[in-house]
Amino acid sequence: MPDEYECDCGVDFRATQQLLEDMGCDVCKSRGVQKRMRLEQEKRLDVQQHQDAVVHLPENMEEEQQEYEEFLDGRKAQVRYPDGTVKLRNPHIELMDQDILYHLALGSESHDLVTMFGDVKFVVMGGTPKRVEQFAYYIMQEIGHKLPAGTTLLDISQYSYRYSMYKVGPVLSISHGMGIPSVGILLHEVIKLMYHARVKDPIFFRIGTCGGIGIEGGTVVISEEAVDGMLRPVLELPVLGKLHSRPARLDKKLTRELKALASAEDPYDTMIGKTMCTYDFYEGQGRLDGAFCDYSDEDKMAFLNRVHESGVTNIEMESLSFAALTHHAGIKSAVVCVTLVDRLKGDQVLAPKEVLNEWQERPQKLVSRYIKRYLQMKGRLSLDGHCGSMCVKSPRRFKLVQQESEHVD
Amino acid sequence: MPDEYECDCGVDFRATQQLLEDMGCDVCKSRGVQKRMRLEQEKRLDVQQHQDAVVHLPENMEEEQQEYEEFLDGRKAQVRYPDGTVKLRNPHIELMDQDILYHLALGSESHDLVTMFGDVKFVVMGGTPKRVEQFAYYIMQEIGHKLPAGTTLLDISQYSYRYSMYKVGPVLSISHGMGIPSVGILLHEVIKLMYHARVKDPIFFRIGTCGGIGIEGGTVVISEEAVDGMLRPVLELPVLGKLHSRPARLDKKLTRELKALASAEDPYDTMIGKTMCTYDFYEGQGRLDGAFCDYSDEDKMAFLNRVHESGVTNIEMESLSFAALTHHAGIKSAVVCVTLVDRLKGDQVLAPKEVLNEWQERPQKLVSRYIKRYLQMKGRLSLDGHCGSMCVKSPRRFKLVQQESEHVD
Repeated sequence: MPDEYECDCGVDFRATQQLLEDMGCDVCKSRGVQKRMRLEQEKRLDVQQHQDAVVHLPENMEEEQQEYEEFLDGRKAQVRYPDGTVKLRNPHIELMDQDILYHLALGSESHDLVTMFGDVKFVVMGGTPKRVEQFAYYIMQEIGHKLPAGTTLLDISQYSYRYSMYKVGPVLSISHGMGIPSVGILLHEVIKLMYHARVKDPIFFRIGTCGGIGIEGGTVVISEEAVDGMLRPVLELPVLGKLHSRPARLDKKLTRELKALASAEDPYDTMIGKTMCTYDFYEGQGRLDGAFCDYSDEDKMAFLNRVHESGVTNIEMESLSFAALTHHAGIKSAVVCVTLVDRLKGDQVLAPKEVLNEWQERPQKLVSRYIKRYLQMKGRLSLDGHCGSMCVKSPRRFKLVQQESEHVD
Repeated sequence: MPDEYECDCGVDFRATQQLLEDMGCDVCKSRGVQKRMRLEQEKRLDVQQHQDAVVHLPENMEEEQQEYEEFLDGRKAQVRYPDGTVKLRNPHIELMDQDILYHLALGSESHDLVTMFGDVKFVVMGGTPKRVEQFAYYIMQEIGHKLPAGTTLLDISQYSYRYSMYKVGPVLSISHGMGIPSVGILLHEVIKLMYHARVKDPIFFRIGTCGGIGIEGGTVVISEEAVDGMLRPVLELPVLGKLHSRPARLDKKLTRELKALASAEDPYDTMIGKTMCTYDFYEGQGRLDGAFCDYSDEDKMAFLNRVHESGVTNIEMESLSFAALTHHAGIKSAVVCVTLVDRLKGDQVLAPKEVLNEWQERPQKLVSRYIKRYLQMKGRLSLDGHCGSMCVKSPRRFKLVQQESEHVD
């Protein structure tokens, strides 16, 4: 291993360059190596040779938080312009004639994205079009947002036939489909949307449902970190044939602020926990009821107990990508899910419809409390009209973008 | 390594047990070890210790095909009942009181699945609800299927708010969303649907769009195999904390039959090729226009050229899971995609709407020719009415399944 990859403390790194940049030396926690690392950025490490990369998280949370905020401050120039608007970690976009957000049916030269989305502060994502439409109407009521007479909410991305997007003043509510690739495509395009619209310091939330581990159905879990099916807190992704790892970190301060908004009067628990994110709903989550299963009930329970002992409180299918990509973009984010079942007691969701409906509203309520409090503090609760519907800059390009979005996979 | 994992030829296996079962010894190609391997099935290997697993495919295609068919025959008892109906590789399902197909909004005891789906022969999957609805109407016309007066096609899974499913006689047309996890969930449930409905030897197709590598936009590619972003022909999946690998194999005979149905009069090429399947649309496919990009245009081109040289003709996001899970279930399957762009020439899709619309119909046409020919040969072209709409067995359970499907992630 070349000595450029040695820390100042003399230790060889057993981690990827990205992990080094993000987490520091895994022995002395020093980040003094960052500069040297960045100079080496072109000589990317083949992560496959370093499969034993280990991510050590500091044990003291206060200390970690402080360190982390200093680290974020130090990295700010990569992800923000001086006025706080989102900067992309991609030098190519600025050089492009136009940037088509294929899966959103929007484009940088077809749509006036600054006028349409410049006032966005919050992006709330959920699984299905129906759930995010519900949230859009709910948050509209909660923040007292008024639509002009004779108008209704429009699915801004209807011509993508993939994701649904609703805008309610400073809040975007977008469906992300199922699984890491689906939420990943969306995040790339929404982060670019933030950049094109010159949005300042946006905050992203994922609200959803999940399986609980050792906690009652109906419990709200705010994720403190996401781990994969092997309990690794990183998103692995092959890029140009090499395996990259990105830490799946969420904002601990935001997590605690959300937790503080849980009310003593809520007839359910709201807790902070570790979330396991899998690539499969059946075998990937140790279920017995998929098309395939070559393990026993005992094997399954041993696995779930092991996962439980490692501190995992819930399992879903998107948080790893959501955490890793927002963290990489320097965007504050949180994952808030309600458990539908305690997997230590069974796999089947048995609560009746009315109960499930009420459970599903719980993450929405918590996120809504945060948004309301934020807007109250900033005096932005009464908003007047950025245009929430389409503002066409070039009709020809507008049409083209709608067409192309229909066809891209 | 314990000597149970040695082949009769004396070679240590450097592969997972599943690969051994499916592909034979990677040196002598012997499958004589299968029996011994199966006895060892309970002692699952930790694949992580065997990251250097290599899958060698025989070079002679004819020989391989024959070997493969023998192999499939030998495995038939695992995946078929004597009458040819689908058998699950999961002993738990038979013991369950009911099996809810959450993401399809169907259930084994709420719906009369045999009456609803017993006549299915073909399952055709595509990305978006819109595309599979179009295919449903197209195939209806092509096979001359008639609906009773006063009826129209219904989205059978509308209450799942996730996938859309249309039934036209022996053909199911279902949307799978984007990415490996999304198509994986669907496949688990559709394979179980085949089992519950007692379908005999179904044939699955995925039709879609993709990026081409070194071939003109509008070319139809029938996948001969799927590889991941590291060019490995396997789907990797953590199961109970251990990494499993499943070969992503497609039916070579079906592939060639489809190729033979390409007409000399088609104003486009139809070819057989290797398909790369990625977990991400942007960095995962070497694009320069994602929210993140830390490589240059030259890096990208070097990667795409390397991929091209390895025989990859196109890139998409679902074939790996589609191939691996159908193969594991012993279901004949094929992936037919049309390229929208030659990635060696650029990333942007520039063809006008009318052209893209026509391109998108090409995989539909090829699959439709196969289905028509099959039905003609079997004398099943004029079909009379299994009920294509809902047949409710228990109204109470029917309602429950609709409710629960709304809430499961």
